Amino acid sequence: MPTLPPGVAAREVTDPDVKRTYAADASPASSAPPSDYTVVRARDVADVVAVLEHAQANRTPVVPQGARTSRAGGAIATEGCIVLNVEALDAIIDVDPLEGYAVVGPGVVNAALKREVARAGLFYGPDPASWETCTIGGNVATNAGGLCCVKYGVTADWVKALQVVLPGGEVMRTGHRTAKGVAGYDLTGLVVGSEGTLGVVTEVLVRLAPAPDPALTALAVFASLDDAVAGIVALRRDSVRPSLLEILDRSSVRAVQAYGDYGFPNDCEAVLLVQSDRPGHAGEDVARYADLMAGAGATEVAVADDAQEADALLEGRRVMSTAFEALGARLAEDVCVPVARLADFIRGVETIAARHGVLIPVSGHGGDGNLHPSIVHPYDDPDALARAWLAFDEVLRLGLDVGGTITGEHGVGSLKVPWLRLELGADELDRQRRLKAVFDPLGIMNPGTVFERPR
Amino acid sequence: MPTLPPGVAAREVTDPDVKRTYAADASPASSAPPSDYTVVRARDVADVVAVLEHAQANRTPVVPQGARTSRAGGAIATEGCIVLNVEALDAIIDVDPLEGYAVVGPGVVNAALKREVARAGLFYGPDPASWETCTIGGNVATNAGGLCCVKYGVTADWVKALQVVLPGGEVMRTGHRTAKGVAGYDLTGLVVGSEGTLGVVTEVLVRLAPAPDPALTALAVFASLDDAVAGIVALRRDSVRPSLLEILDRSSVRAVQAYGDYGFPNDCEAVLLVQSDRPGHAGEDVARYADLMAGAGATEVAVADDAQEADALLEGRRVMSTAFEALGARLAEDVCVPVARLADFIRGVETIAARHGVLIPVSGHGGDGNLHPSIVHPYDDPDALARAWLAFDEVLRLGLDVGGTITGEHGVGSLKVPWLRLELGADELDRQRRLKAVFDPLGIMNPGTVFERPR
Repeated sequence: MPTLPPGVAAREVTDPDVKRTYAADASPASSAPPSDYTVVRARDVADVVAVLEHAQANRTPVVPQGARTSRAGGAIATEGCIVLNVEALDAIIDVDPLEGYAVVGPGVVNAALKREVARAGLFYGPDPASWETCTIGGNVATNAGGLCCVKYGVTADWVKALQVVLPGGEVMRTGHRTAKGVAGYDLTGLVVGSEGTLGVVTEVLVRLAPAPDPALTALAVFASLDDAVAGIVALRRDSVRPSLLEILDRSSVRAVQAYGDYGFPNDCEAVLLVQSDRPGHAGEDVARYADLMAGAGATEVAVADDAQEADALLEGRRVMSTAFEALGARLAEDVCVPVARLADFIRGVETIAARHGVLIPVSGHGGDGNLHPSIVHPYDDPDALARAWLAFDEVLRLGLDVGGTITGEHGVGSLKVPWLRLELGADELDRQRRLKAVFDPLGIMNPGTVFERPR
Repeated sequence: MPTLPPGVAAREVTDPDVKRTYAADASPASSAPPSDYTVVRARDVADVVAVLEHAQANRTPVVPQGARTSRAGGAIATEGCIVLNVEALDAIIDVDPLEGYAVVGPGVVNAALKREVARAGLFYGPDPASWETCTIGGNVATNAGGLCCVKYGVTADWVKALQVVLPGGEVMRTGHRTAKGVAGYDLTGLVVGSEGTLGVVTEVLVRLAPAPDPALTALAVFASLDDAVAGIVALRRDSVRPSLLEILDRSSVRAVQAYGDYGFPNDCEAVLLVQSDRPGHAGEDVARYADLMAGAGATEVAVADDAQEADALLEGRRVMSTAFEALGARLAEDVCVPVARLADFIRGVETIAARHGVLIPVSGHGGDGNLHPSIVHPYDDPDALARAWLAFDEVLRLGLDVGGTITGEHGVGSLKVPWLRLELGADELDRQRRLKAVFDPLGIMNPGTVFERPR
């Protein structure tokens, strides 16, 4: 690999143990690091420019990277690449309450931004489950969602302008700081969700909203999955959109109860959790939501009247990941389906799980139809892992069959490249490759992510 | 011009008087029709495909067009072009209350969509001033805004998926029907606001929200422009975002009062109109908004307690266009500036108006900083028109100088092409031209709009 330019060489991570931690992300696509790769921890935009000048001149692949919380393998070192980590670009540069925006580095942790703007009575919406560790740059790369999307939308709904360094080192600015602006094409929207395949995001301007109230919660237990979905439908039709609407299927509830007693009956088919954060009215909203769920056939309903109780009701949801990990390793899915097909999808996943002898609890953002089937398989059992991958394939195909998408919020990464072709078709992928080439003519940006690696 | 293919020839408008009406739009860029052009009124997607096959094969420019309400000259016949009107693709194909979306043809009038979804208790946000006549296809083309943007955002915030016919006749589908989806690049966002330069939109999927309450209104009169801007700032900081926040400057108020007595004092410097449509709480909101405006220094405040009164308070705003037209012809601007610079911008426009001896009332969506200076000049006075264009140039430059954009919601069209170069720079325009070429390699789509006409 060509020697890094002098200014950037000082940013290289050389300690082999430390270096190895930058080779992987939180996805099952991570395996042993490649034999040849370089890790650079950029300190500022000038470092990013220097790396992208160098990489373009030497046709070296670049893998942009933040906190490596990707569940789709979007930030994994590949053979001969420079891993360009931008976690250190973590300044909250400006919070402007009057214009209603914040300007931040890509390395700012989602939770840090939320806390900082809350001090000014403001609110940044997107809240991926990893919000305490994931970065805004990664959120932009994947167009990350979270639990609040049912009311507040996804990252793209909050990003108004970007600074992006392109291969060769050109600094591109997209979007606008004003509340509105339609001068030229919307390149901000094109970069959001592009998973590091166009350039490296070095500054993000997000809009802010007035802060909502602390959320209150209602929880309902259903003996029938169809009743639970009827509950979701009723809640979606309420004139006040819930700020959170999560579902746990039978298998998720059992996994949680196997981990500890969180008060769920073992024979239930589904649990719904719903919140309101409407200023001054969260209490009346969750009481009404509880009635709606009871009307849909819930066998038990609990309402939390204060923030502490609301927190307690979420406890079972919160331990879910740990409960799954107690049962085995897992492949995390991220299918989004029409709300009308939720029950069909969950039952189909049960059939797939039975056929392959794996456990697939399904949970997630029921209000959006965005579910996270977790394909759980025993640790260190290659046969079970092989069956898990077969199930993974079938779950994605089932999602497409019911009118859904292979990824609601995690991104395609390197993990789902073959299935993206199923979803979009070869012609559309070709078009998107040509779009990529406008920004990255040599194809050095995150090769093997979103698109197949060029041969 | 090559003969149209047989299937489409039947859709050609041949009556010269009728044909001429399709050559122009609502902008001052409209003048005499070109000597050679063809007008086709498509009836369905197949017609659009046939025209774009034919046009690509013959390198014939295509000008896509709906209701021709463009204020920026985005839908004007050019020499040798086919004007492809899609107003007749006006079916509301599907309204799905459960998934929360509607699927419509591009020819559906904005108000027709709003009314149809209201029957299902649902709401489509964007409301351009021309909402009773403008079409969803045109709204998509320009990423249109409106009066409600301060709370509900712009067209791009509501469009989730598109069907677009590309040059050559390929039918492209973008986006997703599910609530979330991040599989591949966001081409929906790229097409929204692309002003017919990439392809012809033939189907639009928009998200819907629960219907708000009918809006109530507060109106305040200010003796000082700075106080009025302080009022906007206070209203933006309220925890409940107004659903409308309009400003009329001194010159706008005088023009309205010259037209009829709408109760405004002639010596005031500005009027603010603010609304809330919050379900169950609009009355308390507008009462609080009135207090906020009084606190900012309003000399008179009126609050409408019911929909009829609310309507009456808006009467002065509503006659504004007619009032301006009584004074002369006008060039309509669409600058969006930071809220903090509103007063600087309005005062700067007053200076420009005085320097060129033209009248420039400034009004518009103060809550967004999106103002519409109207450069009014006597009818049939070439010298005044020339001075108006000088003022037009200076107003756009002033908008850029205070950190704004040349277009908040009308688009670049053919009218503002030279100023787009000022705003984006030559490098960015070159990049955007290369993006266009991915969809339109021969450059036949709406040439002379957004980008300079190729030589």
